[in-house]
Amino acid sequence: MKISLAEINSKVGDLKYNANLIKKHADIAYRNGAEILITPELSLCGYPPEDLLLETEFIDRCQHYLLEIAKKFPKLKIIIGHPKRKNKLLYNSISLLYRGKINKVYDKQKLPNYGVFDEKRYFSPGNKPGVFKHKGKTFGLLICEDIWELGPLEELNELNVEYIICVNASPYEFNKTKNKFNIIQKRLDKLDDVTLIYLNCVGGQDELLFDGNSFITKPRKNNVNDLSFFSGQFISQNIIADFSKKNHIEITRKYEKFPFHRKILEDSIAQIEVLNEKEFLIYNLLNGLILAMKDYIEKNSIKKLFLGLSGGIDSAVVLFIASKVLSQEKITAIMMPSEFTSNTSLKDANKIASNLRVNYKIIPIQKHIKVFEKTFKNDFEGLDKDITEQNIQARIRGMILMAYANKFKGMVLATGNKSEMAVGYSTIYGDMVGGFSILKDVPKTMVYKIANEINYKKIIIPQRIIDRAPSAELKENQIDEDSLPAYEILDKIIDLHIEKNYSEKELIKFGFSTKLVKKVVNLIKINEFKRRQSAPGPKITSKAFGKDRRYPITNKFRL
Amino acid sequence: MKISLAEINSKVGDLKYNANLIKKHADIAYRNGAEILITPELSLCGYPPEDLLLETEFIDRCQHYLLEIAKKFPKLKIIIGHPKRKNKLLYNSISLLYRGKINKVYDKQKLPNYGVFDEKRYFSPGNKPGVFKHKGKTFGLLICEDIWELGPLEELNELNVEYIICVNASPYEFNKTKNKFNIIQKRLDKLDDVTLIYLNCVGGQDELLFDGNSFITKPRKNNVNDLSFFSGQFISQNIIADFSKKNHIEITRKYEKFPFHRKILEDSIAQIEVLNEKEFLIYNLLNGLILAMKDYIEKNSIKKLFLGLSGGIDSAVVLFIASKVLSQEKITAIMMPSEFTSNTSLKDANKIASNLRVNYKIIPIQKHIKVFEKTFKNDFEGLDKDITEQNIQARIRGMILMAYANKFKGMVLATGNKSEMAVGYSTIYGDMVGGFSILKDVPKTMVYKIANEINYKKIIIPQRIIDRAPSAELKENQIDEDSLPAYEILDKIIDLHIEKNYSEKELIKFGFSTKLVKKVVNLIKINEFKRRQSAPGPKITSKAFGKDRRYPITNKFRL
Repeated sequence: MKISLAEINSKVGDLKYNANLIKKHADIAYRNGAEILITPELSLCGYPPEDLLLETEFIDRCQHYLLEIAKKFPKLKIIIGHPKRKNKLLYNSISLLYRGKINKVYDKQKLPNYGVFDEKRYFSPGNKPGVFKHKGKTFGLLICEDIWELGPLEELNELNVEYIICVNASPYEFNKTKNKFNIIQKRLDKLDDVTLIYLNCVGGQDELLFDGNSFITKPRKNNVNDLSFFSGQFISQNIIADFSKKNHIEITRKYEKFPFHRKILEDSIAQIEVLNEKEFLIYNLLNGLILAMKDYIEKNSIKKLFLGLSGGIDSAVVLFIASKVLSQEKITAIMMPSEFTSNTSLKDANKIASNLRVNYKIIPIQKHIKVFEKTFKNDFEGLDKDITEQNIQARIRGMILMAYANKFKGMVLATGNKSEMAVGYSTIYGDMVGGFSILKDVPKTMVYKIANEINYKKIIIPQRIIDRAPSAELKENQIDEDSLPAYEILDKIIDLHIEKNYSEKELIKFGFSTKLVKKVVNLIKINEFKRRQSAPGPKITSKAFGKDRRYPITNKFRL
Repeated sequence: MKISLAEINSKVGDLKYNANLIKKHADIAYRNGAEILITPELSLCGYPPEDLLLETEFIDRCQHYLLEIAKKFPKLKIIIGHPKRKNKLLYNSISLLYRGKINKVYDKQKLPNYGVFDEKRYFSPGNKPGVFKHKGKTFGLLICEDIWELGPLEELNELNVEYIICVNASPYEFNKTKNKFNIIQKRLDKLDDVTLIYLNCVGGQDELLFDGNSFITKPRKNNVNDLSFFSGQFISQNIIADFSKKNHIEITRKYEKFPFHRKILEDSIAQIEVLNEKEFLIYNLLNGLILAMKDYIEKNSIKKLFLGLSGGIDSAVVLFIASKVLSQEKITAIMMPSEFTSNTSLKDANKIASNLRVNYKIIPIQKHIKVFEKTFKNDFEGLDKDITEQNIQARIRGMILMAYANKFKGMVLATGNKSEMAVGYSTIYGDMVGGFSILKDVPKTMVYKIANEINYKKIIIPQRIIDRAPSAELKENQIDEDSLPAYEILDKIIDLHIEKNYSEKELIKFGFSTKLVKKVVNLIKINEFKRRQSAPGPKITSKAFGKDRRYPITNKFRL
């Protein structure tokens, strides 16, 4: 018995495209002798469709394509994820198509409504297990959250299923894959003999990123050598699993191409052997960021990219990522020096741009600064220079970038990182300008690690950029640590407070000074208004700003 | 028996302030001989606290203040809304404080998780009715959504309660109050004899606005003359209801002051007699917008306001609203003419500013435009002038406003309306600049009605502004209707499609041309990216952009 797993990259709302993609995989499955094709959670409409689910015609069109696919492949059993309407209620369902019809429907029982998830906003929970027979074997069905909460998995076990198919749209997080697998394995270890086929989707959708990483396993890892990860980190692929051999599942993969920054190795096991685990995680993160940007660009039909190249590390890393998703002639990096821009920055920006062979412009902004200075001369007379003058510089740069993007029908890439976003070390309508913010959830210390990974073979980002103290270069001899704690410390606090939800009191117990904790926590609170107007970027930590962390702007909670 | 209803305006997160506010009302209640004080849903922490609820110390502090209040008023029964933690689960609860202790706790049973509500993200549902005895009478308790879904109300009826206390945080919508009352009355009409005491909070919180409008009623409106609305539209007040008279409930009100634009009349009945209903709704909306801005400003400690005055209607209305929430010397209106600014606009802007006696500046932007034109001269050579040049003007204005706000520690008010927001007729980082966007959910046609209301007694906004064809004045002889349908038509489509959720097909059946419908619906879809970076503003329709309507940016759904 062969089962085909489609680790696909659906487009939210593009039902026709998704239906065609599923048909393509049905073809692959059929031609390779598979009897069942599995596709991810909500594969037909993409995940998450958000309020599109409230449009009647959206649900109707899903039903239309479902039947169309069923009719085209009558001999293949196809499992498709889609929203279903019944008695005015919506369900997050999977249908088993066979002989031109919908043969079986399973409705997700456990609906996640935390973190980035809002499924209770749309769906009603199912209340029946999903079971079907194939060639005398019993199969059980689960959808994503079903496997995390007590109930559905145990229920299938009691029904003595031999195979469990669990389809997912489970977002990527740095360092989550292994934990996720271990937790599921532990749950599974309590069951009798069963084979779990876990399929996850791939792709970027606004602030989410899906990494694939499907796997097949059994309780107590029986035959674990044959049942490990499919290595599909961020690659759309079709996996044919052949269950007909004794004590051995034969896996065949059909890859789609994807512009990774290192030649992709045959599978993750091999990759992990080449890199140590920490290096592998960074390597993997970088590929994920490339996919996130690629998907945002492609799915939104963006043909040209513009970004401000400051000579600092963030814009260097963003430019590298951009260079992997669009050809060089479609990318324009602009260095916009002021009197505070160092020669080092100018040289380094030039070097990166030439290393990556993108269009490169130098547009000095002194004249622009002057005309604004003149504007405010009388009204600001006698007042100290402050953040105002720094913001003006950042905003002139934002304006220049936006003008190029507008004129040449492209998009600006924002270059800020999570550490800056957290404490508001950024200029709203200035360096925060952009349609997509690829480093939005990447802490500064991790940006450095990515830069090292980018340089793994040859120097693309000059070593000096990595070694220099980071500076916004908005006033004389400025460095970030003038106003912020060292990034190693700041990122530790952000990790503990935002991602791990430790309170101020607990942070102090970790050994940080009360003053520092109060300062950082307060900065995080008062800068919510900036983050609300920031560009979207992919979640890569366990708690990202945005959908994942919903704070009031008007928030007077202080201890 | 006297019951005191505190229609209060809590601050989200400011537990100490809210506790003091409740104590103040407890004082009023006690001094006026009330035996029970009622406060709104989550009155102790403000509504909605969002992810603050996930902070352990936030819940702990609520408990602390709850006990503090209980101890201070041992003789008064006080009902307070607060989040409660039990066995690691959170509940949206109300506690009855008496004799220094928590005497009774009721947990909300029905949790709204649609529209702007995310209560299932945080809370578990209660499963027991809340009933208590006072002076031989039986009281039942409900929280907001409990009264809208079948179950809790009927359950209380079966328990033969004599009074039902329903506490709420029910957001304002234009034209919702009467419908809300009618629906609840209808539900009530099916019950036996009971008195419903419905209390709602007041105030602005980020994108929500609460209007008060508490009421007392009975099935089939027995004694309706004595049981009608409390007229508390947008006014914090304490209402003492005396139930000791036969067939008559005596109401005494203690108002807090609030800078309404018309002298507030004694009660809404009287107001409705003065104005016709449509006029009353607009009068009421305007007061709501004033409160929304006032609360955003005050709760975020903003001391100065800046806005661009274009000579058009939107900025005129926004300036009027601002003039009601801060004293004139703290408000600066800036007219920033370009070569496309008409003399009419210059004169009218000047007139409004002088009518409202705010600071007024004229800062021409031709020089700024020139320096940017020069910057792009070579690269844009031979290309047509397009939206790029228009955006540059809007962005220069945004920069100037932000510089003033930064230097003088104030905030910029965004002046866009819902019609523009819907179709993206606005410049991101340009006229969309600002910390608060008071007209964000107000369609253009309604902005005109508000302008007329502002002029009810004397002309503040020159009639010419109301009569002229609206124009962005970003190029020669431009009017909005060059690129958009007439606002009467556009707003109708927005109302039907966004607020009433009619599909494209249905819109065409309403008589709009297919071409027009496709154009508008497509504009709404492709401009989600702009709205995501827009300033917050209060929801006033049945569906606002933002929390209320959660659309993907990457969205390829087309019919």
